[in-house]
Amino acid sequence: MSSTAPQVAAAETGAMLRALELAGLGVRGANPLVGAVLLAPDGTVLGEGYHRGAGTPHAEPAALADARERGHDARGATMVVTLEPCNHTGRTGPCSEALLDAGVARVVFAAEDVNGSASGGARRLRAAGVEAVGGVGREASLELNERWSVSVAERRPFVTLKSAQSLDGRVAAVDGTSQWITGAEARADGHRLRAIADAVLVGSGTVRDDDPRLTVRAGAAAPVSGMALRVAMGLTPVPAGAAIRGEGFIHLPTRDVGAALDQLVERGVRHLLVEGGPRIAGAFLRAGVVDELVSYVAPLVLGEGAPAFPGLGIGTLAAAPRWVLDDAGGPAVQRLGTDVRLHLRPPPGVPAASHH
Amino acid sequence: MSSTAPQVAAAETGAMLRALELAGLGVRGANPLVGAVLLAPDGTVLGEGYHRGAGTPHAEPAALADARERGHDARGATMVVTLEPCNHTGRTGPCSEALLDAGVARVVFAAEDVNGSASGGARRLRAAGVEAVGGVGREASLELNERWSVSVAERRPFVTLKSAQSLDGRVAAVDGTSQWITGAEARADGHRLRAIADAVLVGSGTVRDDDPRLTVRAGAAAPVSGMALRVAMGLTPVPAGAAIRGEGFIHLPTRDVGAALDQLVERGVRHLLVEGGPRIAGAFLRAGVVDELVSYVAPLVLGEGAPAFPGLGIGTLAAAPRWVLDDAGGPAVQRLGTDVRLHLRPPPGVPAASHH
Repeated sequence: MSSTAPQVAAAETGAMLRALELAGLGVRGANPLVGAVLLAPDGTVLGEGYHRGAGTPHAEPAALADARERGHDARGATMVVTLEPCNHTGRTGPCSEALLDAGVARVVFAAEDVNGSASGGARRLRAAGVEAVGGVGREASLELNERWSVSVAERRPFVTLKSAQSLDGRVAAVDGTSQWITGAEARADGHRLRAIADAVLVGSGTVRDDDPRLTVRAGAAAPVSGMALRVAMGLTPVPAGAAIRGEGFIHLPTRDVGAALDQLVERGVRHLLVEGGPRIAGAFLRAGVVDELVSYVAPLVLGEGAPAFPGLGIGTLAAAPRWVLDDAGGPAVQRLGTDVRLHLRPPPGVPAASHH
Repeated sequence: MSSTAPQVAAAETGAMLRALELAGLGVRGANPLVGAVLLAPDGTVLGEGYHRGAGTPHAEPAALADARERGHDARGATMVVTLEPCNHTGRTGPCSEALLDAGVARVVFAAEDVNGSASGGARRLRAAGVEAVGGVGREASLELNERWSVSVAERRPFVTLKSAQSLDGRVAAVDGTSQWITGAEARADGHRLRAIADAVLVGSGTVRDDDPRLTVRAGAAAPVSGMALRVAMGLTPVPAGAAIRGEGFIHLPTRDVGAALDQLVERGVRHLLVEGGPRIAGAFLRAGVVDELVSYVAPLVLGEGAPAFPGLGIGTLAAAPRWVLDDAGGPAVQRLGTDVRLHLRPPPGVPAASHH
């Protein structure tokens, strides 16, 4: 151990490895993956917890609750957690206060909270006389939350692009028919994506043509963060009777991806799911702001019809971005009923260009 | 057991199940999958074998050789085999004679040989005084070799279409660049496909543009049937110095898929691998003669460029053939390095239209 390493007990290092493991169980989305382990002064594990997604308890309260359920007292205990405890009241109360209320004596955390509004938890704890040691397992924690950190740092929503296409890359047949290219399992999986996003966006042309509701289907896994914001983007007027309208709907009358993202992040959207149509998909890809691509491929051969990603302006093979199969959050390549689901992240070394 | 069931001993039924299992170990291609188990009169297993692909021993000689290696004598034994022993000399001698030479006393087989030139083995055996009982496990054997049987019945080669494309269904960028869309692992797998085919076909336009050699790469799994015939199809002249030329090359100057298949089956081609380009791929699909589709999908987004399957004339979604993920011969969906391999069979109930 180098002389600059934080002073922690072996039991705490072990607990941090376990906390990182727990963090990975969380839902991959815009919220950070955080795990926590509560240790007794003698190193015994009193409780464990992790963050299950937006709107659910943070990892530390989850670990405190787990300890209570097991009949353990947190007073004098050490909280080992992969991210600096938050210090703000969002959909849940500040973790710093929860730790103080429980009588935790020491906090060992991996990475500092880079989210301006939530940071400061370590300072708050120290002011109240609690030992707070940061940096243990910092690299692993940052890696786990790389995309979330980037998103916070770039001050735009983390963008997931969902695409449902034929084997030969078409999202509609020549006559425009597109329902349904993929089967029931793939469509249900798409609804699951909606359930973990803060907002779901389609082009206003798609609203006019397909009249989607963009709600999470009843029977899909219950949304954990309430219903996502439903967003129509583009210059086409949204008809008064459109199914997308109602509470939680907004129309962004712009074709500028950067401007749309700015407005969304101002409304508190941290995770945006872009569902198309193809022109919108192409625009987000061209803007270089797609952080995650989920592609449902139906083994259907259409030959012609609307292409999945038009207007990219790629002239030669060497200029084409080569996405990477990504096993984070589940297998990168999955069979879903009659179809195939690919989970992809952007090419390495080619960070999503900021629109700022 | 119904009164019409063939009279076989329990040990023979068990051996047939094992023979079917062995058959499934064979290389999926144009040759039938066949397995064989040699039983002593008391039901002891003396030897096992299966057909490993064109040009290698049939299942029965393989089982006889296995018995010999184990020090067993085949005289008076029973051969349990999933397909009626052949009665013709192809790349190997007739199995009926091999069984007679070995002194086998009884043969239990599952399905009759539907291949006109090879059938008649049971009759030959009976004429020589060997008991030959057919029909045990017939359905399972036919199912295993359904596509081979269809191919023999339709008197055209079994056609595998290989395609290498971007995620969005492009086989080349706007400027025509296409080397390489897929990575090394996918390309090596493509060479493996060549190694088990009797002939490899590309369009004559592709020959002019890409000058492919169509040989099996040194270092790939050794071809089991010698080098496949290399075929250029189409009206574009094949340049004198084209890499495809040489022994084992033919040019079929036609755009008619049916005519090309007729010529190939006359030359003894039982398994044809069609490698493109896209116009050829589209023509074979349109003709309804593709029995198997192997699609390598690179997670590359090209946006525009040559489409994988042009000219199909499909106007609406309901008219698009929905291929089926096929686990025969290995997982239908496989990750191959940076890419994904899909193995597909034609839609059920829509048999490949005969060109006759």
